[in-house]
Amino acid sequence: MPKLDICFSPELLPLHDLRGKVAVIVDILRASSTIVTALGEGVSHVFPVASLEECAALGQQHGCLTAAERDGLPAVGFDLGNSPFGFLDAGRVVRGRALSISTTNGTAALRQSLAAEAVVVGAFLNLAAVAAFARAQGRDVLVVCAGWKGQFCLEDTVFGGALAEQLSDDFDVRGSDATLAALHLWQQAKPDLAGYLLQSAHVRRLNSLEASQDFEFCLRLDAYADVLPRWQTDRLVAVSV
Amino acid sequence: MPKLDICFSPELLPLHDLRGKVAVIVDILRASSTIVTALGEGVSHVFPVASLEECAALGQQHGCLTAAERDGLPAVGFDLGNSPFGFLDAGRVVRGRALSISTTNGTAALRQSLAAEAVVVGAFLNLAAVAAFARAQGRDVLVVCAGWKGQFCLEDTVFGGALAEQLSDDFDVRGSDATLAALHLWQQAKPDLAGYLLQSAHVRRLNSLEASQDFEFCLRLDAYADVLPRWQTDRLVAVSV
Repeated sequence: MPKLDICFSPELLPLHDLRGKVAVIVDILRASSTIVTALGEGVSHVFPVASLEECAALGQQHGCLTAAERDGLPAVGFDLGNSPFGFLDAGRVVRGRALSISTTNGTAALRQSLAAEAVVVGAFLNLAAVAAFARAQGRDVLVVCAGWKGQFCLEDTVFGGALAEQLSDDFDVRGSDATLAALHLWQQAKPDLAGYLLQSAHVRRLNSLEASQDFEFCLRLDAYADVLPRWQTDRLVAVSV
Repeated sequence: MPKLDICFSPELLPLHDLRGKVAVIVDILRASSTIVTALGEGVSHVFPVASLEECAALGQQHGCLTAAERDGLPAVGFDLGNSPFGFLDAGRVVRGRALSISTTNGTAALRQSLAAEAVVVGAFLNLAAVAAFARAQGRDVLVVCAGWKGQFCLEDTVFGGALAEQLSDDFDVRGSDATLAALHLWQQAKPDLAGYLLQSAHVRRLNSLEASQDFEFCLRLDAYADVLPRWQTDRLVAVSV
Protein backbone atom coordinates (compact mmCIF):
# COMPACT_ATOMS: atom_id res chain seq x y z
CA MET A 1 0.00 0.00 0.00
CA PRO A 2 1.52 3.35 -0.93
CA LYS A 3 2.16 5.84 1.83
CA LEU A 4 1.00 9.42 2.24
CA ASP A 5 3.36 11.67 4.17
CA ILE A 6 3.28 15.40 4.83
CA CYS A 7 6.18 17.83 4.90
CA PHE A 8 5.19 20.84 7.01
CA SER A 9 7.75 23.22 5.54
CA PRO A 10 10.09 23.41 2.55
CA GLU A 11 12.84 23.65 5.18
CA LEU A 12 12.17 20.00 6.03
CA LEU A 13 12.34 18.77 2.41
CA PRO A 14 15.97 17.62 2.75
CA LEU A 15 14.67 14.92 5.14
CA HIS A 16 12.54 13.41 2.36
CA ASP A 17 13.53 11.41 -0.68
CA LEU A 18 11.13 12.55 -3.39
CA ARG A 19 12.31 10.17 -6.10
CA GLY A 20 9.51 7.99 -7.44
CA LYS A 21 6.88 9.87 -5.48
CA VAL A 22 4.03 12.22 -6.25
CA ALA A 23 4.67 15.66 -4.73
CA VAL A 24 1.57 17.72 -4.00
CA ILE A 25 2.51 21.38 -3.60
CA VAL A 26 0.13 23.24 -1.30
CA ASP A 27 -0.08 26.95 -0.61
CA ILE A 28 -3.76 27.36 0.15
CA LEU A 29 -3.48 31.10 0.84
CA ARG A 30 -3.07 31.72 -1.95
CA ALA A 31 -0.67 30.54 -4.64
CA SER A 32 -1.99 27.03 -5.17
CA SER A 33 -5.61 28.17 -5.01
CA THR A 34 -4.87 30.93 -7.52
CA ILE A 35 -3.07 28.58 -9.93
CA VAL A 36 -5.97 26.10 -9.82
CA THR A 37 -8.41 28.95 -10.45
CA ALA A 38 -6.35 30.35 -13.33
CA LEU A 39 -6.18 26.98 -15.10
CA GLY A 40 -9.83 26.34 -14.28
CA GLU A 41 -10.74 29.63 -15.94
CA GLY A 42 -8.91 28.73 -19.13
CA VAL A 43 -5.34 29.98 -18.68
CA SER A 44 -3.27 27.77 -21.03
CA HIS A 45 -0.27 27.23 -18.76
CA VAL A 46 1.48 28.73 -15.75
CA PHE A 47 5.12 29.62 -15.17
CA PRO A 48 5.70 29.78 -11.42
CA VAL A 49 8.79 31.90 -10.82
CA ALA A 50 10.80 32.92 -7.81
CA SER A 51 11.61 36.56 -8.52
CA LEU A 52 9.56 39.58 -9.54
CA GLU A 53 12.16 40.28 -12.26
CA GLU A 54 11.70 36.86 -13.86
CA CYS A 55 7.94 37.29 -13.65
CA ALA A 56 8.07 40.68 -15.38
CA ALA A 57 10.51 39.40 -18.01
CA LEU A 58 8.18 36.55 -18.98
CA GLY A 59 5.43 39.11 -19.40
CA GLN A 60 7.52 41.36 -21.64
CA GLN A 61 9.18 38.64 -23.73
CA HIS A 62 6.37 36.12 -24.07
CA GLY A 63 3.26 38.19 -23.57
CA CYS A 64 2.27 36.29 -20.42
CA LEU A 65 -0.23 37.67 -18.02
CA THR A 66 1.79 38.52 -14.93
CA ALA A 67 0.73 37.99 -11.33
CA ALA A 68 2.87 38.81 -8.32
CA GLU A 69 2.61 39.48 -4.63
CA ARG A 70 5.05 40.13 -1.85
CA ASP A 71 4.16 39.63 1.81
CA GLY A 72 0.53 39.15 0.92
CA LEU A 73 0.10 42.34 -1.10
CA PRO A 74 -0.09 42.75 -4.90
CA ALA A 75 3.29 43.77 -6.30
CA VAL A 76 3.40 47.01 -8.31
CA GLY A 77 3.69 46.84 -12.11
CA PHE A 78 2.02 43.46 -12.71
CA ASP A 79 -1.31 42.61 -14.33
CA LEU A 80 -2.60 40.80 -11.24
CA GLY A 81 -1.87 40.13 -7.60
CA ASN A 82 -2.17 36.70 -6.04
CA SER A 83 -5.96 36.75 -5.64
CA PRO A 84 -7.98 34.08 -7.44
CA PHE A 85 -10.56 36.76 -8.19
CA GLY A 86 -8.17 38.24 -10.73
CA PHE A 87 -9.18 35.35 -12.98
CA LEU A 88 -12.89 35.62 -12.31
CA ASP A 89 -13.27 39.23 -13.39
CA ALA A 90 -15.46 39.09 -16.50
CA GLY A 91 -13.83 42.22 -17.87
CA ARG A 92 -10.42 40.56 -18.20
CA VAL A 93 -9.65 38.01 -20.89
CA VAL A 94 -7.59 35.17 -19.45
CA ARG A 95 -8.72 32.20 -21.53
CA GLY A 96 -5.94 30.88 -23.74
CA ARG A 97 -3.27 33.13 -22.25
CA ALA A 98 -0.17 32.01 -20.42
CA LEU A 99 0.43 33.19 -16.88
CA SER A 100 3.66 34.04 -15.14
CA ILE A 101 3.23 34.05 -11.36
CA SER A 102 5.64 34.91 -8.57
CA THR A 103 4.72 34.15 -4.99
CA THR A 104 6.50 34.27 -1.66
CA ASN A 105 6.24 30.65 -0.57
CA GLY A 106 4.49 28.48 -3.15
CA THR A 107 7.01 28.86 -5.94
CA ALA A 108 9.91 28.02 -3.69
CA ALA A 109 8.16 24.84 -2.48
CA LEU A 110 7.49 23.74 -6.05
CA ARG A 111 11.03 24.41 -7.25
CA GLN A 112 12.44 22.36 -4.39
CA SER A 113 10.22 19.38 -5.20
CA LEU A 114 11.18 18.70 -8.79
CA ALA A 115 13.01 15.47 -7.96
CA ALA A 116 9.59 13.82 -7.59
CA GLU A 117 8.21 11.54 -10.30
CA ALA A 118 5.16 13.77 -10.63
CA VAL A 119 4.62 17.27 -9.24
CA VAL A 120 1.08 18.58 -8.97
CA VAL A 121 -0.59 21.53 -7.27
CA GLY A 122 -3.23 20.95 -4.61
CA ALA A 123 -5.87 23.17 -3.04
CA PHE A 124 -9.27 22.70 -1.46
CA LEU A 125 -10.62 23.87 -4.84
CA ASN A 126 -9.30 20.73 -6.57
CA LEU A 127 -9.07 18.21 -3.73
CA ALA A 128 -10.99 15.56 -5.69
CA ALA A 129 -8.65 15.92 -8.68
CA VAL A 130 -5.56 15.50 -6.50
CA ALA A 131 -7.04 12.45 -4.78
CA ALA A 132 -8.01 10.87 -8.10
CA PHE A 133 -4.53 11.49 -9.51
CA ALA A 134 -2.85 9.99 -6.45
CA ARG A 135 -5.05 6.90 -6.66
CA ALA A 136 -4.37 6.48 -10.37
CA GLN A 137 -0.60 6.79 -9.84
CA GLY A 138 -0.52 4.40 -6.91
CA ARG A 139 2.83 5.87 -5.81
CA ASP A 140 3.87 7.24 -2.43
CA VAL A 141 2.60 10.80 -2.00
CA LEU A 142 4.35 13.65 -0.22
CA VAL A 143 2.24 16.72 0.52
CA VAL A 144 4.64 19.69 0.52
CA CYS A 145 3.24 22.55 2.56
CA ALA A 146 4.59 25.87 1.38
CA GLY A 147 4.10 27.37 4.82
CA TRP A 148 4.71 31.02 5.65
CA LYS A 149 8.37 31.97 5.32
CA GLY A 150 9.35 28.43 6.20
CA GLN A 151 7.02 28.19 9.20
CA PHE A 152 4.26 25.67 9.80
CA CYS A 153 0.89 26.85 8.46
CA LEU A 154 -2.46 25.60 9.69
CA GLU A 155 -4.34 25.88 6.39
CA ASP A 156 -1.80 23.90 4.35
CA THR A 157 -1.63 21.23 7.05
CA VAL A 158 -5.40 20.92 7.26
CA PHE A 159 -5.52 20.43 3.48
CA GLY A 160 -3.00 17.60 3.91
CA GLY A 161 -5.33 16.04 6.46
CA ALA A 162 -8.31 16.35 4.10
CA LEU A 163 -6.35 14.60 1.35
CA ALA A 164 -5.23 11.89 3.78
CA GLU A 165 -8.85 11.28 4.75
CA GLN A 166 -9.90 10.97 1.11
CA LEU A 167 -7.10 8.49 0.43
CA SER A 168 -7.31 6.53 3.65
CA ASP A 169 -8.75 3.40 2.01
CA ASP A 170 -5.98 3.15 -0.58
CA PHE A 171 -2.96 4.68 1.18
CA ASP A 172 -1.16 4.18 4.48
CA VAL A 173 -2.02 7.45 6.23
CA ARG A 174 -0.95 6.33 9.71
CA GLY A 175 2.74 5.74 9.11
CA SER A 176 3.97 9.22 9.96
CA ASP A 177 3.21 11.49 12.89
CA ALA A 178 2.89 14.46 10.55
CA THR A 179 0.07 12.77 8.64
CA LEU A 180 -1.63 11.66 11.85
CA ALA A 181 -1.53 15.20 13.22
CA ALA A 182 -2.85 16.65 9.95
CA LEU A 183 -5.70 14.12 9.93
CA HIS A 184 -6.66 15.03 13.48
CA LEU A 185 -6.53 18.76 12.77
CA TRP A 186 -8.66 18.28 9.63
CA GLN A 187 -11.22 16.32 11.61
CA GLN A 188 -11.45 19.20 14.08
CA ALA A 189 -11.62 21.80 11.34
CA LYS A 190 -14.06 20.07 8.99
CA PRO A 191 -17.39 21.06 10.59
CA ASP A 192 -16.51 24.77 10.25
CA LEU A 193 -13.38 25.10 8.13
CA ALA A 194 -13.51 28.89 7.81
CA GLY A 195 -14.17 29.42 11.51
CA TYR A 196 -11.35 27.05 12.39
CA LEU A 197 -8.79 28.66 10.13
CA LEU A 198 -9.72 32.17 11.23
CA GLN A 199 -7.84 31.39 14.44
CA SER A 200 -4.63 31.36 12.44
CA ALA A 201 -2.39 34.40 12.69
CA HIS A 202 -1.52 34.06 9.02
CA VAL A 203 -5.17 33.99 8.00
CA ARG A 204 -5.95 37.01 10.16
CA ARG A 205 -3.04 38.82 8.51
CA LEU A 206 -4.39 37.99 5.05
CA ASN A 207 -7.84 39.19 6.00
CA SER A 208 -6.44 42.47 7.18
CA LEU A 209 -4.58 42.91 3.88
CA GLU A 210 -7.33 42.17 1.40
CA ALA A 211 -10.99 41.46 1.38
CA SER A 212 -11.89 38.25 3.14
CA GLN A 213 -13.58 37.07 -0.06
CA ASP A 214 -10.26 35.49 -1.09
CA PHE A 215 -10.21 33.44 2.07
CA GLU A 216 -13.77 32.20 1.67
CA PHE A 217 -13.14 31.38 -1.99
CA CYS A 218 -9.98 29.37 -1.30
CA LEU A 219 -11.91 27.07 1.06
CA ARG A 220 -14.56 26.05 -1.50
CA LEU A 221 -14.21 22.29 -1.70
CA ASP A 222 -13.94 21.01 -5.27
CA ALA A 223 -15.00 24.20 -7.02
CA TYR A 224 -12.59 22.99 -9.72
CA ALA A 225 -12.89 19.28 -9.05
CA ASP A 226 -11.35 18.24 -12.38
CA VAL A 227 -8.50 20.75 -12.61
CA LEU A 228 -5.12 19.22 -11.89
CA PRO A 229 -2.10 21.47 -12.46
CA ARG A 230 0.88 19.23 -13.23
CA TRP A 231 4.47 20.26 -13.80
CA GLN A 232 5.68 19.51 -17.33
CA THR A 233 9.21 20.48 -18.35
CA ASP A 234 9.08 24.14 -17.33
CA ARG A 235 5.42 24.93 -16.68
CA LEU A 236 2.21 23.86 -15.01
CA VAL A 237 -0.57 22.63 -17.27
CA ALA A 238 -4.00 21.27 -16.46
CA VAL A 239 -4.01 17.53 -17.11
CA SER A 240 -6.95 15.17 -17.12
CA VAL A 241 -7.02 12.75 -14.21
CA MET B 1 2.31 39.59 27.09
CA PRO B 2 5.13 37.17 26.31
CA LYS B 3 4.61 34.69 23.51
CA LEU B 4 4.86 30.93 23.47
CA ASP B 5 5.93 29.41 20.16
CA ILE B 6 6.78 25.84 19.20
CA CYS B 7 9.50 24.63 16.87
CA PHE B 8 8.53 21.19 15.56
CA SER B 9 12.04 20.12 14.58
CA PRO B 10 15.64 21.21 15.20
CA GLU B 11 15.79 21.59 11.40
CA LEU B 12 13.47 24.60 11.75
CA LEU B 13 15.54 26.32 14.46
CA PRO B 14 17.29 28.64 11.97
CA LEU B 15 13.89 30.32 11.47
CA HIS B 16 13.79 31.34 15.14
CA ASP B 17 15.75 33.99 17.00
CA LEU B 18 16.38 32.48 20.42
CA ARG B 19 18.09 35.48 21.97
CA GLY B 20 16.37 36.71 25.10
CA LYS B 21 14.02 33.73 25.16
CA VAL B 22 13.49 30.64 27.27
CA ALA B 23 14.14 27.48 25.23
CA VAL B 24 12.36 24.37 26.48
CA ILE B 25 14.02 21.27 25.04
CA VAL B 26 11.60 18.37 24.67
CA ASP B 27 12.33 14.78 23.76
CA ILE B 28 9.56 12.97 25.60
CA LEU B 29 10.65 9.53 24.37
CA ARG B 30 12.98 9.52 26.06
CA ALA B 31 15.92 11.85 26.60
CA SER B 32 14.16 14.70 28.36
CA SER B 33 12.09 12.31 30.50
CA THR B 34 15.23 10.40 31.45
CA ILE B 35 17.16 13.55 32.35
CA VAL B 36 14.30 14.78 34.56
CA THR B 37 14.14 11.38 36.24
CA ALA B 38 17.90 11.25 36.78
CA LEU B 39 17.99 14.66 38.44
CA GLY B 40 14.81 13.84 40.37
CA GLU B 41 16.50 10.72 41.72
CA GLY B 42 19.50 12.66 42.95
CA VAL B 43 21.99 12.71 40.08
CA SER B 44 24.12 15.82 40.74
CA HIS B 45 24.37 17.07 37.15
CA VAL B 46 24.06 15.88 33.58
CA PHE B 47 26.38 16.27 30.61
CA PRO B 48 24.34 15.78 27.45
CA VAL B 49 26.72 14.87 24.65
CA ALA B 50 26.39 14.21 20.97
CA SER B 51 28.71 11.24 20.43
CA LEU B 52 29.12 7.87 22.09
CA GLU B 53 32.87 8.56 22.25
CA GLU B 54 32.42 11.77 24.23
CA CYS B 55 29.98 10.00 26.52
CA ALA B 56 32.43 7.17 27.20
CA ALA B 57 35.31 9.61 27.69
CA LEU B 58 33.42 11.54 30.37
CA GLY B 59 32.81 8.25 32.12
CA GLN B 60 36.47 7.25 32.06
CA GLN B 61 37.96 10.65 32.88
CA HIS B 62 35.45 12.01 35.37
CA GLY B 63 33.83 8.92 36.76
CA CYS B 64 30.40 9.85 35.41
CA LEU B 65 27.66 7.34 35.10
CA THR B 66 27.23 6.85 31.36
CA ALA B 67 23.96 6.45 29.51
CA ALA B 68 23.66 6.01 25.77
CA GLU B 69 21.28 4.77 23.14
CA ARG B 70 21.24 4.66 19.40
CA ASP B 71 18.04 4.26 17.38
CA GLY B 72 16.08 3.53 20.52
CA LEU B 73 18.30 0.72 21.82
CA PRO B 74 20.84 0.83 24.67
CA ALA B 75 24.36 1.29 23.29
CA VAL B 76 26.91 -1.36 24.24
CA GLY B 77 29.59 -0.58 26.86
CA PHE B 78 27.69 2.04 28.89
CA ASP B 79 26.26 1.87 32.41
CA LEU B 80 22.71 2.65 31.26
CA GLY B 81 20.53 3.02 28.20
CA ASN B 82 18.09 5.84 27.74
CA SER B 83 15.36 4.38 29.97
CA PRO B 84 14.26 6.38 33.00
CA PHE B 85 14.03 3.08 34.88
CA GLY B 86 17.81 2.95 34.96
CA PHE B 87 17.59 5.56 37.70
CA LEU B 88 14.83 3.90 39.63
CA ASP B 89 16.59 0.58 40.17
CA ALA B 90 17.17 0.34 43.91
CA GLY B 91 20.28 -1.73 43.33
CA ARG B 92 22.14 1.07 41.57
CA VAL B 93 23.53 4.10 43.39
CA VAL B 94 22.90 7.25 41.39
CA ARG B 95 22.46 9.87 44.10
CA GLY B 96 25.28 12.41 44.04
CA ARG B 97 26.85 11.06 40.88
CA ALA B 98 27.27 12.95 37.62
CA LEU B 99 25.73 11.55 34.46
CA SER B 100 27.00 11.68 30.92
CA ILE B 101 24.21 10.96 28.44
CA SER B 102 24.24 10.64 24.68
CA THR B 103 20.97 10.49 22.75
CA THR B 104 19.97 10.53 19.11
CA ASN B 105 17.79 13.62 19.00
CA GLY B 106 17.57 15.37 22.35
CA THR B 107 21.22 16.33 22.69
CA ALA B 108 21.31 17.82 19.22
CA ALA B 109 18.22 19.94 19.94
CA LEU B 110 19.75 21.24 23.16
CA ARG B 111 23.12 22.05 21.61
CA GLN B 112 21.41 24.04 18.86
CA SER B 113 19.42 26.11 21.35
CA LEU B 114 22.21 27.59 23.46
CA ALA B 115 21.69 31.11 22.10
CA ALA B 116 18.61 31.35 24.33
CA GLU B 117 18.67 33.36 27.57
CA ALA B 118 17.70 30.25 29.52
CA VAL B 119 17.69 26.63 28.35
CA VAL B 120 15.64 24.12 30.32
CA VAL B 121 14.48 20.55 29.77
CA GLY B 122 10.77 19.77 29.66
CA ALA B 123 8.80 16.55 29.95
CA PHE B 124 5.36 15.52 31.12
CA LEU B 125 7.15 14.46 34.31
CA ASN B 126 8.02 18.07 35.16
CA LEU B 127 5.38 20.06 33.30
CA ALA B 128 4.48 22.12 36.38
CA ALA B 129 8.12 23.05 36.96
CA VAL B 130 8.54 24.23 33.37
CA ALA B 131 5.33 26.27 33.53
CA ALA B 132 6.35 27.87 36.82
CA PHE B 133 9.79 28.74 35.46
CA ALA B 134 8.32 30.28 32.31
CA ARG B 135 5.90 32.39 34.38
CA ALA B 136 8.66 33.54 36.69
CA GLN B 137 10.90 34.52 33.77
CA GLY B 138 8.14 36.33 31.90
CA ARG B 139 10.12 36.01 28.66
CA ASP B 140 9.07 34.63 25.29
CA VAL B 141 9.22 30.84 25.30
CA LEU B 142 10.21 28.57 22.44
CA VAL B 143 9.44 24.87 22.86
CA VAL B 144 12.07 23.01 20.85
CA CYS B 145 10.82 19.57 19.88
CA ALA B 146 13.68 17.15 19.36
CA GLY B 147 11.62 15.12 16.92
CA TRP B 148 12.77 11.85 15.40
CA LYS B 149 15.74 12.31 13.07
CA GLY B 150 14.51 15.80 12.28
CA GLN B 151 10.91 14.75 11.65
CA PHE B 152 7.81 16.01 13.42
CA CYS B 153 6.91 13.89 16.48
CA LEU B 154 3.45 13.68 17.99
CA GLU B 155 4.51 13.22 21.62
CA ASP B 156 6.82 16.26 21.71
CA THR B 157 4.18 18.39 20.00
CA VAL B 158 1.46 17.30 22.39
CA PHE B 159 3.72 18.26 25.31
CA GLY B 160 4.06 21.71 23.72
CA GLY B 161 0.28 21.93 23.64
CA ALA B 162 0.01 20.93 27.29
CA LEU B 163 2.49 23.65 28.26
CA ALA B 164 0.64 26.20 26.13
CA GLU B 165 -2.60 25.32 27.91
CA GLN B 166 -0.98 25.76 31.32
CA LEU B 167 0.42 29.15 30.32
CA SER B 168 -2.58 30.41 28.37
CA ASP B 169 -3.53 33.02 30.99
CA ASP B 170 -0.10 34.61 31.06
CA PHE B 171 1.26 34.03 27.57
CA ASP B 172 0.08 34.66 24.01
CA VAL B 173 -0.47 31.08 22.85
CA ARG B 174 -2.48 31.99 19.73
CA GLY B 175 0.11 33.95 17.81
CA SER B 176 1.62 31.06 15.87
CA ASP B 177 -0.02 28.28 13.90
CA ALA B 178 2.38 25.76 15.40
CA THR B 179 1.20 26.57 18.92
CA LEU B 180 -2.46 26.53 17.86
CA ALA B 181 -2.02 23.10 16.27
CA ALA B 182 -0.20 21.77 19.33
CA LEU B 183 -2.95 23.07 21.62
CA HIS B 184 -5.62 21.38 19.52
CA LEU B 185 -3.71 18.09 19.43
CA TRP B 186 -3.20 18.21 23.21
CA GLN B 187 -6.89 18.82 23.75
CA GLN B 188 -7.66 15.74 21.65
CA ALA B 189 -5.01 13.68 23.41
CA LYS B 190 -5.67 14.73 27.00
CA PRO B 191 -8.57 12.40 27.90
CA ASP B 192 -6.43 9.34 27.03
CA LEU B 193 -2.85 10.45 26.47
CA ALA B 194 -1.37 6.95 26.24
CA GLY B 195 -4.06 5.71 23.88
CA TYR B 196 -3.65 8.77 21.70
CA LEU B 197 0.10 8.53 21.44
CA LEU B 198 0.02 4.80 20.76
CA GLN B 199 -1.15 5.71 17.26
CA SER B 200 2.27 7.20 16.59
CA ALA B 201 4.66 5.17 14.49
CA HIS B 202 7.55 6.31 16.65
CA VAL B 203 5.80 5.21 19.83
CA ARG B 204 4.94 1.84 18.33
CA ARG B 205 8.60 1.46 17.35
CA LEU B 206 9.71 2.22 20.91
CA ASN B 207 7.23 -0.24 22.32
CA SER B 208 8.55 -2.94 20.07
CA LEU B 209 12.11 -2.18 21.19
CA GLU B 210 11.67 -2.15 24.94
CA ALA B 211 9.03 -2.80 27.49
CA SER B 212 6.13 -0.40 27.26
CA GLN B 213 6.75 0.53 30.88
CA ASP B 214 9.05 3.33 29.66
CA PHE B 215 6.25 4.80 27.60
CA GLU B 216 3.74 4.72 30.44
CA PHE B 217 6.28 6.23 32.83
CA CYS B 218 7.19 9.10 30.51
CA LEU B 219 3.53 10.19 30.40
CA ARG B 220 3.13 10.55 34.17
CA LEU B 221 2.14 14.18 34.61
CA ASP B 222 4.22 15.96 37.24
CA ALA B 223 5.82 12.90 38.79
CA TYR B 224 8.79 15.27 39.34
CA ALA B 225 6.79 18.49 39.59
CA ASP B 226 9.65 20.48 41.15
CA VAL B 227 12.57 19.21 39.06
CA LEU B 228 13.77 21.75 36.50
CA PRO B 229 16.93 20.82 34.57
CA ARG B 230 18.59 24.05 33.48
CA TRP B 231 21.68 24.49 31.37
CA GLN B 232 24.56 26.12 33.26
CA THR B 233 27.89 26.62 31.50
CA ASP B 234 28.44 23.05 30.32
CA ARG B 235 25.90 20.93 32.18
CA LEU B 236 22.29 20.52 33.25
CA VAL B 237 21.54 20.99 36.93
CA ALA B 238 18.27 20.91 38.81
CA VAL B 239 17.35 24.45 39.84
CA SER B 240 14.58 25.57 42.12
CA VAL B 241 11.74 27.35 40.38
